[in-house]
Amino acid sequence: SSLLCLDDVEDAATHAMAADLRDFVAGGAGTETTLRANRTALERVRLVPRVLNDVSACSTETTVLGTSTTMPVLVAPMAYQRLAHPEGERALAAACAGAGVIYVASMLSSSTFVDITATGASTWCQLYWLRDRGQMTNLLRRAESAGCRAVVLTVDVPRMGRRLRDIRSGFTLPAGISAVNLSGDVGVHDGSDSESAFMAHTRLTFDPSLSWSDLDWLRQRTSLPIVVKGVLHPDDAQRAAELGVDALIVSNHGGRQLDGAVSSAEALPAVREVVGDRCEVLMDSGIRSGSDVVKAIALGASSVLIGRPAWWGLALAGQAGAARVLELIRQETEDAVALAGCRGIADVRSSVRALPAAESWSW
Amino acid sequence: SSLLCLDDVEDAATHAMAADLRDFVAGGAGTETTLRANRTALERVRLVPRVLNDVSACSTETTVLGTSTTMPVLVAPMAYQRLAHPEGERALAAACAGAGVIYVASMLSSSTFVDITATGASTWCQLYWLRDRGQMTNLLRRAESAGCRAVVLTVDVPRMGRRLRDIRSGFTLPAGISAVNLSGDVGVHDGSDSESAFMAHTRLTFDPSLSWSDLDWLRQRTSLPIVVKGVLHPDDAQRAAELGVDALIVSNHGGRQLDGAVSSAEALPAVREVVGDRCEVLMDSGIRSGSDVVKAIALGASSVLIGRPAWWGLALAGQAGAARVLELIRQETEDAVALAGCRGIADVRSSVRALPAAESWSW
Amino acid sequence: SSLLCLDDVEDAATHAMAADLRDFVAGGAGTETTLRANRTALERVRLVPRVLNDVSACSTETTVLGTSTTMPVLVAPMAYQRLAHPEGERALAAACAGAGVIYVASMLSSSTFVDITATGASTWCQLYWLRDRGQMTNLLRRAESAGCRAVVLTVDVPRMGRRLRDIRSGFTLPAGISAVNLSGDVGVHDGSDSESAFMAHTRLTFDPSLSWSDLDWLRQRTSLPIVVKGVLHPDDAQRAAELGVDALIVSNHGGRQLDGAVSSAEALPAVREVVGDRCEVLMDSGIRSGSDVVKAIALGASSVLIGRPAWWGLALAGQAGAARVLELIRQETEDAVALAGCRGIADVRSSVRALPAAESWSW
Amino acid sequence: SSLLCLDDVEDAATHAMAADLRDFVAGGAGTETTLRANRTALERVRLVPRVLNDVSACSTETTVLGTSTTMPVLVAPMAYQRLAHPEGERALAAACAGAGVIYVASMLSSSTFVDITATGASTWCQLYWLRDRGQMTNLLRRAESAGCRAVVLTVDVPRMGRRLRDIRSGFTLPAGISAVNLSGDVGVHDGSDSESAFMAHTRLTFDPSLSWSDLDWLRQRTSLPIVVKGVLHPDDAQRAAELGVDALIVSNHGGRQLDGAVSSAEALPAVREVVGDRCEVLMDSGIRSGSDVVKAIALGASSVLIGRPAWWGLALAGQAGAARVLELIRQETEDAVALAGCRGIADVRSSVRALPAAESWSW
Ligand SMILES: Cc1cc2nc3c(=O)[nH]c(=O)nc-3n(C[C@H](O)[C@H](O)[C@H](O)COP(=O)(O)O)c2cc1C
Ligand SMILES: Cc1cc2nc3c(=O)[nH]c(=O)nc-3n(C[C@H](O)[C@H](O)[C@H](O)COP(=O)(O)O)c2cc1C
Ligand SMILES: Cc1cc2nc3c(=O)[nH]c(=O)nc-3n(C[C@H](O)[C@H](O)[C@H](O)COP(=O)(O)O)c2cc1C
Ligand SMILES: Cc1cc2nc3c(=O)[nH]c(=O)nc-3n(C[C@H](O)[C@H](O)[C@H](O)COP(=O)(O)O)c2cc1C
Repeated sequence: SSLLCLDDVEDAATHAMAADLRDFVAGGAGTETTLRANRTALERVRLVPRVLNDVSACSTETTVLGTSTTMPVLVAPMAYQRLAHPEGERALAAACAGAGVIYVASMLSSSTFVDITATGASTWCQLYWLRDRGQMTNLLRRAESAGCRAVVLTVDVPRMGRRLRDIRSGFTLPAGISAVNLSGDVGVHDGSDSESAFMAHTRLTFDPSLSWSDLDWLRQRTSLPIVVKGVLHPDDAQRAAELGVDALIVSNHGGRQLDGAVSSAEALPAVREVVGDRCEVLMDSGIRSGSDVVKAIALGASSVLIGRPAWWGLALAGQAGAARVLELIRQETEDAVALAGCRGIADVRSSVRALPAAESWSW
Repeated sequence: SSLLCLDDVEDAATHAMAADLRDFVAGGAGTETTLRANRTALERVRLVPRVLNDVSACSTETTVLGTSTTMPVLVAPMAYQRLAHPEGERALAAACAGAGVIYVASMLSSSTFVDITATGASTWCQLYWLRDRGQMTNLLRRAESAGCRAVVLTVDVPRMGRRLRDIRSGFTLPAGISAVNLSGDVGVHDGSDSESAFMAHTRLTFDPSLSWSDLDWLRQRTSLPIVVKGVLHPDDAQRAAELGVDALIVSNHGGRQLDGAVSSAEALPAVREVVGDRCEVLMDSGIRSGSDVVKAIALGASSVLIGRPAWWGLALAGQAGAARVLELIRQETEDAVALAGCRGIADVRSSVRALPAAESWSW
Repeated sequence: SSLLCLDDVEDAATHAMAADLRDFVAGGAGTETTLRANRTALERVRLVPRVLNDVSACSTETTVLGTSTTMPVLVAPMAYQRLAHPEGERALAAACAGAGVIYVASMLSSSTFVDITATGASTWCQLYWLRDRGQMTNLLRRAESAGCRAVVLTVDVPRMGRRLRDIRSGFTLPAGISAVNLSGDVGVHDGSDSESAFMAHTRLTFDPSLSWSDLDWLRQRTSLPIVVKGVLHPDDAQRAAELGVDALIVSNHGGRQLDGAVSSAEALPAVREVVGDRCEVLMDSGIRSGSDVVKAIALGASSVLIGRPAWWGLALAGQAGAARVLELIRQETEDAVALAGCRGIADVRSSVRALPAAESWSW
Repeated sequence: SSLLCLDDVEDAATHAMAADLRDFVAGGAGTETTLRANRTALERVRLVPRVLNDVSACSTETTVLGTSTTMPVLVAPMAYQRLAHPEGERALAAACAGAGVIYVASMLSSSTFVDITATGASTWCQLYWLRDRGQMTNLLRRAESAGCRAVVLTVDVPRMGRRLRDIRSGFTLPAGISAVNLSGDVGVHDGSDSESAFMAHTRLTFDPSLSWSDLDWLRQRTSLPIVVKGVLHPDDAQRAAELGVDALIVSNHGGRQLDGAVSSAEALPAVREVVGDRCEVLMDSGIRSGSDVVKAIALGASSVLIGRPAWWGLALAGQAGAARVLELIRQETEDAVALAGCRGIADVRSSVRALPAAESWSW
């Protein structure tokens, strides 16, 4: 295979997708400053590796909320994966099952949770906060009965970011692809010349009143672990930890929400510092290689999530393509762990230094 | 509309204006280092947004010197707006009236203050310090009787910056466009091969002796609030605050005066720090999006002003074009406020962090 | 000659080598971030030279582990030099002999240690840690009996870095070139579409269990000075110094191992600080001029090694080409020493400041 | 005139000179890192201007070693100015006389000191340290009797920097141009393929043993003020101040000597700090505008020197061209002083802040 790194996969996938879909996936909000910052921040982090540590039994295994995984990498929730491939979520979840990593199913999945968990993947279910609270209860019930093991509440979408590419391309869901886990007719929304179809949908169905007190509501309705996705400010991390959430995901939604937001890699250390060991701190946005995984761990992440890279694999060759992406990043991560002189993820945490980008700051 | 962000408006307006006018508007002084720095400084600021705060009633409203406005954005004073469009100041002021924002009329307006305030816009009147003190008295009287609500004294033009583009293009006022609020014949000045017509005019009519004591003169002649425009050094901000000015505008005149001057975004935090709550601290130079507005607020600004973007809208389609610009930046600001997890401008001030560009310094 | 600096030599050599060999030499691991960082870090270091110091007898001479050399530059160990030129190691070692600098023979030399030392070069022998401990004993015996003066243990290759260029090109050893100092048939390994031939070879024959305790094994089997190559973390440097190694080489293997690792120039000061005078601290990766040599010395290096530049000379014109490279860098170093106001290397250490790149950090 | 800034003059002059001469003037040592750093350091400095200070009588006048000058700018010593224009030094000195600034005559002037001072220019005489001490005595006597007012001892040329452009072009002095102030036949030296004619000349005639004690020799032989040119390290500045030199010039010789040396703008503040008011601290290397002059003053310089810009003017149009350059930079400086809210150079020193490039360091 000539797909030797995730950049190769991106290049190939870019040619395989129609222009509007490609832009939907690649794009960020506004001028895409944060989208770019996610990459440059990670590129500027420098690892100080260790040597003379027996790495003959080097492993990338870890646990995420008690579940054993083959590496500290999960697949991030992404909506409507049948846009990428006819098999959609099932193909990507199956690849996760094969690779031994956790699959996070989007609330806006175009396959049912049951079909997804049927692949054998250890699955989490991501929720946005909907105006229709009955939908939320239904979603929780469905996710639980399908066997999802955690609920991820995405908190950075009180409204959708201004993704100009989608407005320009007029991108909208094709017939036959919909959010099949939502009950009833959720309606199809039309875009306008200043709003994409997705923005309209979000505006009409998402509940912007989501606040700290709603975490209680959620806690009362499910016994699954609760993960809060989209935290960047240490004060919010502090409060979430105090409230006993099981994990945080430091994320700027891949640069798709607040343009100008700090990169996840820069926000991570301060979040880990206030949180300490009170809960797991996951991170996403911009991870593109095993070296990035090791950098994130050394900066304080428990594990990371990858979004677009998994989509590229899926778009390119369905389950096999996604499997290739997961195998690539696992191999790269193992190589990086070993070359950093570590026997495993715990060693990275305790002994490798990640020098933050000099362009970063002190709180 | 395909004008989805201010960059789109700039591109379109750039094609709509003659080359010399385009350069007059776009240009800065000297090698345009400060012009560029205004943008790069803002791009490097990183916002640390909040989450889980009910933003269902998110608003961009605020007050500026006691006047309610729909957003913390004013239109900066710009001379001779009939260069951009036949309706000139009246069209831009009318757009401000419609948008509920303050219009700052330049002393060098090509429409009368009365015509401007007749649009219903909440109007401030900007003054340069003229050698002819009688003109100053007249201007104040006219501004007051037309209903202007504040006087903005621009203090960064003891002489005009070396704007090479205007010298090269030989740019000069066409017949029929003049500073109609000045009494008598202010004269038309010719440029030379080392001085533009505007530089000559400034040299001959502006008074470079303007100093702190002149603020008294002004205070005695008007009861309107006094705003000092063009402050960058914290020692000057400190003194102005002590003298009881109502507001400061941290500004480098859009990069058009001292080439090499610090960007406004970099100067802002130190100014706010010394001033505290003694007066409002406005800021301009380089604001190009709602994210920039939120960044400026988080760095300490009470509100911001936009110069060129308003001009582009005006040049493109008169009142409608200017209205489009104002609506765009209002929408972007609202989106940024909500996506930063804030219910309004006060929330941004109190809870969002803006990490200064790492390339910045400590005083 | 039109070869006035090492960049000239690189350009010329680049045209003289076949594409796959050129890539094998030039390439780094992964996305080559560390490869680039080696150069940018050195470029950003700024020297603060001295003046009014009599430099009429300016000399670049120094000692390395007690051996007098004409300059603080050694030739780094590089495998299979007959790939570059039919005379391979013998030509490069002969050039070192002529130039009065130390030649470090790779374990994977394609000429025998005896042939190498026969050139008269002061020779060190570099070892990787092999699974076959008998080979190690043999290598030590051969190196010692050939007259090698130190053993360099490379510790940053528990496995080979992911050098994508070699996988893409399918690069492999041509018939007739092999690691002639290894006893028996070490086997030829085939690459695959996800592993180069060299990666396979390394995986099968190198021992990834190498750890601190193995230094004892080595110490017991040779009385030669022991040099540990590939240290970047100050804690490892500290431990090595405590164990009494004779010298360290701060190195990231020319960017060929852990992609994302810190540049050697950035890692050097912290290593020197913990080590103090307990052992020599050499450095390599990215040295391309006499100014770089002086920068490294001022940052704390005892001496530096050059890898690729020596290869370029060899590829271009055998012994004469290598001699030209060594003469160039010696002349440049002498010029830099004199222009820094120093009489010699000791002066550089004691009186020249090297301001680290601002993009660097504090530990 | 279309020459509105020094970049314009550079462009025009670049076309007016033969390629080898252009390269001789423009070039720096080695990879020209320091040459570029001189510009980028100045570009990154940010001025924090003052306002509301009466600048109606704004002046750029100052004194340099007691001599009144129209601005804090001198013309730096540059060899063989008849290469640029048949009138050479006389034209440039005449322009200085006209502009009211000090002309520093190079030891290697191609016109006699008497011819130079006859222009009426306030003239300093620059010396390199020659092996032939008799020449030094002669030069001092000639300079004094011609009326030179200070002696500038250049201390950063114990040997010439490796200026590769000159080696490549084979640049050498044409017949008829020579160092006419040196007595006897100083000889013409041939370049080789690794040394330019100028490098050979320097090697053979300059004395690299120049050291602190030689300042005594000089002091005993002249009563003129002594200026030491080429200091970058604060320890050297400290020692020079203790020895009572009248002025220092912080300079890296326009990037022509040690490649990798710190830029003058970065070195300046530390030098001023140790020197305090004990002597004047001049600065050169990279000054290209009035904003740069004001930046240098605000960073601690007493005055600055310009090298290449003066040459460009001379090459372009002899005395008139040089006069144009001096008038341009004077006008720019006056504009920058006024726009920084200063009445003069003393105000700049006391009240304007120059924020150092963030990429700089602390000692
Ligand atoms: C096409 C696409 C769809 C996404 N859909 C969702 C979603 O439904 N829910 C969610 O919480 N995040 C969603 N995200 C954000 C991802 O979960 C994740 O935060 C982001 O992609 C990480 O950045 P990366 O793509 O740079 O790895 C989506 C991202 C993309 C690219
Ligand atoms: C074409 C133009 C004319 C201007 N005229 C004036 C003026 O008459 N009075 C004044 O105080 N500032 C004037 N300014 C400066 C603006 O008020 C403002 O400080 C600057 O444009 C803000 O920067 P921005 O254009 O990047 O938003 C002018 C700016 C431009 C671009
Ligand atoms: C072609 C090539 C072969 C190398 N072989 C070895 C080797 O056999 N053993 C070793 O310790 N290092 C090896 N290295 C690394 C060098 O010793 C050295 O660390 C590196 O080249 C220094 O960086 P530079 O090339 O930028 O000067 C090799 C490097 C290159 C480029
Ligand atoms: C063509 C040329 C000739 C020079 N000759 C001399 C010289 O004879 N003596 C000397 O001290 N410096 C000499 N210099 C250095 C200048 O005095 C000065 O330090 C340098 O040009 C300042 O940098 P700038 O050219 O960027 O302004 C020369 C520089 C140039 C460009």
